[in-house]
Amino acid sequence: MTVLIAGWVAIDEIKTPFAHVEGKLGGSSTPAALAAALFTEVRMLAAIGEDFPMDELRKFEGRGIDLSGVRVEPGTTTSRWGAEYSFDMNSRETLYTHLGVNESWNPELPDGWAASETAIFAALDPGLQVRLMKSLASPVATMVDTIKFYIDTQPEAVREAMRTAHFVSINEMEARELAGTPSIARAARGIVAAGTKTAIVKLGEYGAACASSDGDYFVAPGYPLENVVDPTGAGDAFAGAFLGYIDSVGVVDAVHIRRAMIYGSTVASFQVEGLGPERLLTLTREEVEQRFREFRMLTHYDIGD
Amino acid sequence: MTVLIAGWVAIDEIKTPFAHVEGKLGGSSTPAALAAALFTEVRMLAAIGEDFPMDELRKFEGRGIDLSGVRVEPGTTTSRWGAEYSFDMNSRETLYTHLGVNESWNPELPDGWAASETAIFAALDPGLQVRLMKSLASPVATMVDTIKFYIDTQPEAVREAMRTAHFVSINEMEARELAGTPSIARAARGIVAAGTKTAIVKLGEYGAACASSDGDYFVAPGYPLENVVDPTGAGDAFAGAFLGYIDSVGVVDAVHIRRAMIYGSTVASFQVEGLGPERLLTLTREEVEQRFREFRMLTHYDIGD
Repeated sequence: MTVLIAGWVAIDEIKTPFAHVEGKLGGSSTPAALAAALFTEVRMLAAIGEDFPMDELRKFEGRGIDLSGVRVEPGTTTSRWGAEYSFDMNSRETLYTHLGVNESWNPELPDGWAASETAIFAALDPGLQVRLMKSLASPVATMVDTIKFYIDTQPEAVREAMRTAHFVSINEMEARELAGTPSIARAARGIVAAGTKTAIVKLGEYGAACASSDGDYFVAPGYPLENVVDPTGAGDAFAGAFLGYIDSVGVVDAVHIRRAMIYGSTVASFQVEGLGPERLLTLTREEVEQRFREFRMLTHYDIGD
Repeated sequence: MTVLIAGWVAIDEIKTPFAHVEGKLGGSSTPAALAAALFTEVRMLAAIGEDFPMDELRKFEGRGIDLSGVRVEPGTTTSRWGAEYSFDMNSRETLYTHLGVNESWNPELPDGWAASETAIFAALDPGLQVRLMKSLASPVATMVDTIKFYIDTQPEAVREAMRTAHFVSINEMEARELAGTPSIARAARGIVAAGTKTAIVKLGEYGAACASSDGDYFVAPGYPLENVVDPTGAGDAFAGAFLGYIDSVGVVDAVHIRRAMIYGSTVASFQVEGLGPERLLTLTREEVEQRFREFRMLTHYDIGD
């Protein structure tokens, strides 16, 4: 099948304790699309401004990503985002967010895309997420993500988007804030109780946990990296790999959800090894499978009798 | 065999968003001893002052812990510690530390205790840790823990204690500080490269990771709790269960170290369900085994072909 991915394409400025780069291809849909494309076909829905460096997008074409939904909106500029990371790379400060074209983006699906059965709606206005989800003819596996800005400004709309989606991907701080509890397990189960099938709580370098409506709970540690270059986009790469894998197998049950969680963590661990999309642009499925098996070695234990 | 546990016994004051208690039995050796006693016999080496409420210690006698090394030092007061936790229970502020008897504690091992083959030297002056370790006749599995205070004031002595021990148990922030790297994996491998057999980095609610001198690396997530009452002593309970299990099986290899990590996380998850030592005082081995098996259900995944 083909995964539809809707979200931002942006131009990023990234400061870490070890690097400072400008003009990097970013936005929520970019790592999600590159990650999903390791497993299945991908179509991207996004908006860019007249200033966008088109050479950047051409790099995507060799990855099997349909870019016909990435439209230049006349008279607009591309979204721009700058951030600076702390020494341990676990926290960051947003330096600026220039919304540009995404300030008023309100797209329709291109012809034929309403037939998409799997879709990721990355951090976007939650009302837009719901409208796009409802325009799908027969969705099987839809996922929404969100950011603190929408939880703070439109909490009810965020909750509606989460209830409407099959999967919710949310980071730990946002899950705690939305659920009003310090417990990740309670926050995840609360999101499921409200209506979604599976709530995935991303724990940054510590891995991810998920709760499902069939009562299943799964928790996976993070892949132990020795060198993190740029954490930007790890959560979006996780989401893309997760749903890309689910789309490729066409089965949504506990066994495949758990495996998708490990594929998500695996691809996210590659994402953070390069600045912006650099690592995912050259990553192969064979490299993913090798680290997936290594992940098993790092986490497996024999319980004895 | 019998695990020797040397560390503080203290009287704690704990403030959480949900509770405020004073006079709770605390200190590093208390949760470690109660946790180890679930797996094997335990002897405690600690000092208390003339003000100590002796009824508190009698609770330990029913748990199979030899208290003959817990001595009242005339003319001293018991150590006292107060702390306040943040909303998410992941960080705390120390309100006060009254060293009391531990300011100048410099014990000798009671008769016969030098024959102990397994021992935990919880957070203590690192010079004392080394002296006690070297007084053991034929140590098989020794473990040291430390705290930020000693890393800041005596980093070289802390490094010597770590090189001397078979196992190092250290929390993530302290490991990063000591190793001068944001990478947990690099910090753990660095501690091993300096001479210890296995470095265990405790990740709080996110679990724990360990690196060993045979090249093995293992990472385990935390047990997903819905209700954390008091995080105090979780790391010490982890250490006690880890080494208590190793002592009970008498085998130190990758299979048993991985299993010991899960027993450590399991018992730590019980520790935080009660204020001070409350939960461990009534915990049974059967309850531990049940949650150990549940842990497996929460973390296992099938990788397919």
